[in-house]
Amino acid sequence: MPDVSKPSRVVIVGAGFGGLATTKALANAPVEITLVDRHNFHTFQPLLYQVATAGLNATDVAHAVRGIFHKQDNVEFRRATVTGVDWSAHTVELDHGAEPSLGFDHIVVAAGASASFFGIPGAAEHGLALYTLGDAVALRNHVLERFEAADADPALLDDGVLTFAIVGGGPTGVEVAGALSELFAVVLRKDFRALDVSRARVVLIEMADTLLTPFAPISQRSAAETLAGMGVELRLGEAVTSVTATRVALRSGEELKAHTLIWAAGVQANPLAQALGVETGRGGRIVVGPDLRIAGHPEAFAIGDVAGSRSATGDELLPQLAPVAIQGGHHVAKEIVASLEGRPSKRFRYRDKGTMATIGRRAAVAELPLGVKLRGTPAWLAWLGLHLVTLVGFRNRLSVFLNWAWNYVTWDRGPRIILRPEERRAP
Amino acid sequence: MPDVSKPSRVVIVGAGFGGLATTKALANAPVEITLVDRHNFHTFQPLLYQVATAGLNATDVAHAVRGIFHKQDNVEFRRATVTGVDWSAHTVELDHGAEPSLGFDHIVVAAGASASFFGIPGAAEHGLALYTLGDAVALRNHVLERFEAADADPALLDDGVLTFAIVGGGPTGVEVAGALSELFAVVLRKDFRALDVSRARVVLIEMADTLLTPFAPISQRSAAETLAGMGVELRLGEAVTSVTATRVALRSGEELKAHTLIWAAGVQANPLAQALGVETGRGGRIVVGPDLRIAGHPEAFAIGDVAGSRSATGDELLPQLAPVAIQGGHHVAKEIVASLEGRPSKRFRYRDKGTMATIGRRAAVAELPLGVKLRGTPAWLAWLGLHLVTLVGFRNRLSVFLNWAWNYVTWDRGPRIILRPEERRAP
Repeated sequence: MPDVSKPSRVVIVGAGFGGLATTKALANAPVEITLVDRHNFHTFQPLLYQVATAGLNATDVAHAVRGIFHKQDNVEFRRATVTGVDWSAHTVELDHGAEPSLGFDHIVVAAGASASFFGIPGAAEHGLALYTLGDAVALRNHVLERFEAADADPALLDDGVLTFAIVGGGPTGVEVAGALSELFAVVLRKDFRALDVSRARVVLIEMADTLLTPFAPISQRSAAETLAGMGVELRLGEAVTSVTATRVALRSGEELKAHTLIWAAGVQANPLAQALGVETGRGGRIVVGPDLRIAGHPEAFAIGDVAGSRSATGDELLPQLAPVAIQGGHHVAKEIVASLEGRPSKRFRYRDKGTMATIGRRAAVAELPLGVKLRGTPAWLAWLGLHLVTLVGFRNRLSVFLNWAWNYVTWDRGPRIILRPEERRAP
Repeated sequence: MPDVSKPSRVVIVGAGFGGLATTKALANAPVEITLVDRHNFHTFQPLLYQVATAGLNATDVAHAVRGIFHKQDNVEFRRATVTGVDWSAHTVELDHGAEPSLGFDHIVVAAGASASFFGIPGAAEHGLALYTLGDAVALRNHVLERFEAADADPALLDDGVLTFAIVGGGPTGVEVAGALSELFAVVLRKDFRALDVSRARVVLIEMADTLLTPFAPISQRSAAETLAGMGVELRLGEAVTSVTATRVALRSGEELKAHTLIWAAGVQANPLAQALGVETGRGGRIVVGPDLRIAGHPEAFAIGDVAGSRSATGDELLPQLAPVAIQGGHHVAKEIVASLEGRPSKRFRYRDKGTMATIGRRAAVAELPLGVKLRGTPAWLAWLGLHLVTLVGFRNRLSVFLNWAWNYVTWDRGPRIILRPEERRAP
């Protein structure tokens, strides 16, 4: 039992969608929150592919966590990596700091995920993921460098220097395939006049027989037709078996000459899930009960990509999407307050508000509640509006809006620069 | 003599202010230009300190070089590092590419400079320069990380974790001192509620007895008073003798506990100047004649920071500032056309249009032609206006303007994120 004379201590691990939603929902609760993340910023992951394809500035989709909570007094932020939890001492262990363990009365594990390479040889070493902001900037650098390399030595064209393989036909794969095609056709063709940019290939590899598996067939066909119309080569029912820096071997026996492999094939729970000593299931996701409590630890919750939460009606694991994390955060905040007030726990009910994927200029698919399915411009406008509204921070919304307007009107992509910090002093 | 049946080939080394000005000024000349730079973007260096202090996005002050010349047909861009020039073969040697040497009829060396550490022990290893965009992002990461480190372990405060030493009281040193003080007072004080941010120190070290040596005494006093009023500690007539990761030894015998040393003490010519086998002078700058030709090489010019150009009237080397590079570029373009048309060369005449340095919110000094000297808000507005007008690219101007307006109205600094690309695949 927590000491009732002091505010209850809540540690929230991760400042992604789930962690932020929980923290905000506890704004007026009698708790002292410590929010921990290894980055000092929140990342708006749905737009990472636009950073990677030079449509947005990296700083447009990131927001300093401390800035989000200037006006919420019951939160402290710690930039640190959580290395484990001592369940008997009720402490969270951090990788550094004068107080490397944080006591808690409740803990919310919202540590997210990382790319899952399924043990495919070479994939972890050579595949470029798109899950963190650092991933997005690294991918932008990599793509632009391939064009510079081709420009310096056109003989590399025959070796696949401008072939961009993407594994995974879910929303991320579809979005990055469309955005890369547009970047090449709209901007880089003008940038590289001496180069035959039409030789650039985007190859989208998906194990299933359709793109966007959870979408309705009409949306799947629309996405496939739109991408094909943009010149994206679709390899459905195909899989990657091994990868080197310049080659991608496929299950069919084909060897693709490709100097780029973008890994959008799925995620696995943050390795922290394993370190916690709790039960994990498919994809390393933490097993949680119907109220999102971690089995055997009534004071602990897991939400978002790191958690294997289920829909109230079925046995299906909920998808690793922002709305699941956000709604999980709201639920967990209520659970913590209920527990402090001695009220019983409730079952988490996920409300599916639909899914969307954008493909390019005025091209998207959107599936909304009540069976509403949009394609083309209406879907694209719905996608733009939803993402603008849900971005954290007015400055970010303004900057994203202006960049989109600029890109739409001028067919330009401003941030197409190859940039690495020049580190000279050890941190 | 160039072959008159073919357009004259001009190689321009460096896409800074000088290289861009030369290239643009040759837009209608009967030449084929190859512009070479090791980055794929032009950097607007006067605003780097605002990137380093989280006032602007990195991409706001960078512009893809290829994008600048979409409409200029006589330019090709090569992203490469120039390693030398073969004067007898008239070729420029590049570090890579299928054609690693470029033939030329004229060459313009506009390769800029890098920080000069004057052989002070530890300075090159531990000093943080502010000359490239990578430098600026690295400095932003470093500064923000010092605050996170102090927050995680307040005992580090006694060791100088939040002491930021700046060497060099010229415009860069003054600007970064003012911008850091503002960042701490305006934003980080709110970000780090548990930390005594008032213990953060900014120490500006200058060897001369005044700041802003080339400015008039009234401007020097104004800058010193404004900085002192913001809490910046001025150490005039002082010098750095050695540096470690956490200590800065001064000539007076004082040892400053400082985990950050920002090196704004001066620049030396790009090392390429030495590799060219031409005469170099003070600071490694290439010796040029009155028409900016490199001695002994009538087909070669040097401009900007890499060149030791002189004023028409005196023996003084011109300062390493953007206007000198830009005017040099315009002059050299005219010289190349004159040479193609068989006209005689002319003497380069630098027109000093004044200098400015901004210190903070509505605080700056500006010295304009005709003896006009501004301070405070008028100087600040003049500074803002000039920099907006001279920025390359409308998108960059718009974004900088909006960021400035945002920062001014909200007292916020949006891009205060610690970000490194997560490189996983060898380039």
